[in-house]
Amino acid sequence: MSKPAMSEFELIKRYFVRPTTEDSATSPMHQGVALGIGDDCALLQPAGNMELAISTDLLVEGRHFFPGADPEALGHKALAVNLSDLAAMGATPVGFTLALAMPVIDTDWLDAFSTGLFALADMHGCTLIGGDTTKGPLTICITVFGEVAQGSALRRDKAVPGDDIWVSGSLGDARLALAALRNELVNGLRLALSPEQLKQALHCLHRPTPRLALGIALRGAAHAAIDISDGLGGDLGHILERSNCGATINIDALPVGPALQMQSMAVRRAWSLSGGDDYELCFTAPPQHRTAIAAVGLSTDTALSRIGAITSGTGLKLVDAQGAELAMPFSSFDHFHIP
Amino acid sequence: MSKPAMSEFELIKRYFVRPTTEDSATSPMHQGVALGIGDDCALLQPAGNMELAISTDLLVEGRHFFPGADPEALGHKALAVNLSDLAAMGATPVGFTLALAMPVIDTDWLDAFSTGLFALADMHGCTLIGGDTTKGPLTICITVFGEVAQGSALRRDKAVPGDDIWVSGSLGDARLALAALRNELVNGLRLALSPEQLKQALHCLHRPTPRLALGIALRGAAHAAIDISDGLGGDLGHILERSNCGATINIDALPVGPALQMQSMAVRRAWSLSGGDDYELCFTAPPQHRTAIAAVGLSTDTALSRIGAITSGTGLKLVDAQGAELAMPFSSFDHFHIP
Repeated sequence: MSKPAMSEFELIKRYFVRPTTEDSATSPMHQGVALGIGDDCALLQPAGNMELAISTDLLVEGRHFFPGADPEALGHKALAVNLSDLAAMGATPVGFTLALAMPVIDTDWLDAFSTGLFALADMHGCTLIGGDTTKGPLTICITVFGEVAQGSALRRDKAVPGDDIWVSGSLGDARLALAALRNELVNGLRLALSPEQLKQALHCLHRPTPRLALGIALRGAAHAAIDISDGLGGDLGHILERSNCGATINIDALPVGPALQMQSMAVRRAWSLSGGDDYELCFTAPPQHRTAIAAVGLSTDTALSRIGAITSGTGLKLVDAQGAELAMPFSSFDHFHIP
Repeated sequence: MSKPAMSEFELIKRYFVRPTTEDSATSPMHQGVALGIGDDCALLQPAGNMELAISTDLLVEGRHFFPGADPEALGHKALAVNLSDLAAMGATPVGFTLALAMPVIDTDWLDAFSTGLFALADMHGCTLIGGDTTKGPLTICITVFGEVAQGSALRRDKAVPGDDIWVSGSLGDARLALAALRNELVNGLRLALSPEQLKQALHCLHRPTPRLALGIALRGAAHAAIDISDGLGGDLGHILERSNCGATINIDALPVGPALQMQSMAVRRAWSLSGGDDYELCFTAPPQHRTAIAAVGLSTDTALSRIGAITSGTGLKLVDAQGAELAMPFSSFDHFHIP
């Protein structure tokens, strides 16, 4: 609390209001923003025939991040988890609001938090258009806005039997990092991670990359998509439920990084299927689009793995590399019941 | 915690997902909502030539409301404070997102909270389009969306010297209720309020009425408008700052209810000028619109008081009923520095 006398208005002005001149290279105002910070409301003017995609996420200290978490990484992640929802709809970022409760006004914390936040926002041309600040337990609520041409959003309810199921990146790394941070015993043993492996896993946990370019490139190529932040198994389940279909996936085809590859088969399967906090996309597309999907992976520099197929049944069926069915309990991440 | 086994998804489904059939009389989906709860993002499709007005507010237990506050009233107020921001822009409500952190899943609390929330939402055709729930200290973050024809929003930066300054309703009642709840000593004495007066003041504090019909009716008639939730003095100051002008107001012309009228002149003046938590509108309009403004008051059944005028100077000048200038310290409500 370096400057206890700073008011709420000074705080907003100092850390969150940015130059909006047309020639500002560092913080261009998105052209869809008709009025930014400073009035009762912000005003967005979507281009003709565009829909506005909207998502909100609430991050609570001690629940979504550890007390004392690096504020710069937190600024990045708070926006990243929201941008990941835009990615899953194939929407292009426009802007976001930030509501922030803090126990005290800590200028060092605010410096770092806003730096991490705006670095990611600027990378995607996403303008901070409004917000609210108050005293309270550290809590971050971001609502994000993107645009997508009418009818072309990637939804959960458009999967079709016969579709391939794809997933981006690698899975389970954030769960691996969490296990390391918590000193979890896995099968009675501590995780053996090299410093380099730990660093990489922590990067996945703290600085996820929202798959925006991928989502945008998948419009027209994919049928359904979802962000698998609650774990692939549970989130794919949402596609199945909303699309009234089933799926079979090869659990040994789930992409994992080198560190998770070294763990036992049971751990690798469990954490890649339902580890949570992976900000990758799972999507379905007809087999005749395989070449197009591969091209999307190349053009967006994103590893894409084909892990199974949508069926006309119900529910998710897991098979191993030999095609043998597996009975495996898993659950989607639930913020009221931490596993 | 009547049902500890309820998951986050069941909770959302039970309390916040509502029938969306076309013939549902209780919860019509606003026509601007292309996709509601249940996907990574909601989709809004503003009508052609419409701008989307957006505001967000964060309410924290112990800061914005007392621990143990009536959840039904809280559901009302959490949305009302956001709708008040739409009212101040002259925007018509479309929808809102709700992010909710709760220490436990308390089904009685959720029943009452969602009842209060949806009663107000339905009154204004405002659809819940998405949200987030998590475990944490009781915190409510609502982001609200409204629509307004391009260029016709009521902004803070459009006041013009010579404009009349108006305010709706009566001021200071919420501050009166707060003083009663806190057992504050006012000039060394407890407040003398009849049960009926206390009830009325508490109603203002807990169940504010967003002035939506007024805001909409003022489009084209008013120059500038603001929601005075942080107190008239400070919020009018924002209009002056953004419009580069000054103002003179007659502090004895500020409208107060019967209970505040009975307090000392000093208390009446202070709380009507800067009590806070009054969800009324302050707006400016040219004198030639006085008849039109009076008609707006009648058609929207809203008491409107003319309290002063915009000047070409800077800052806010206070005068009494005799026109004598007053030096009176006041400050805008600041959530980091509770008065």
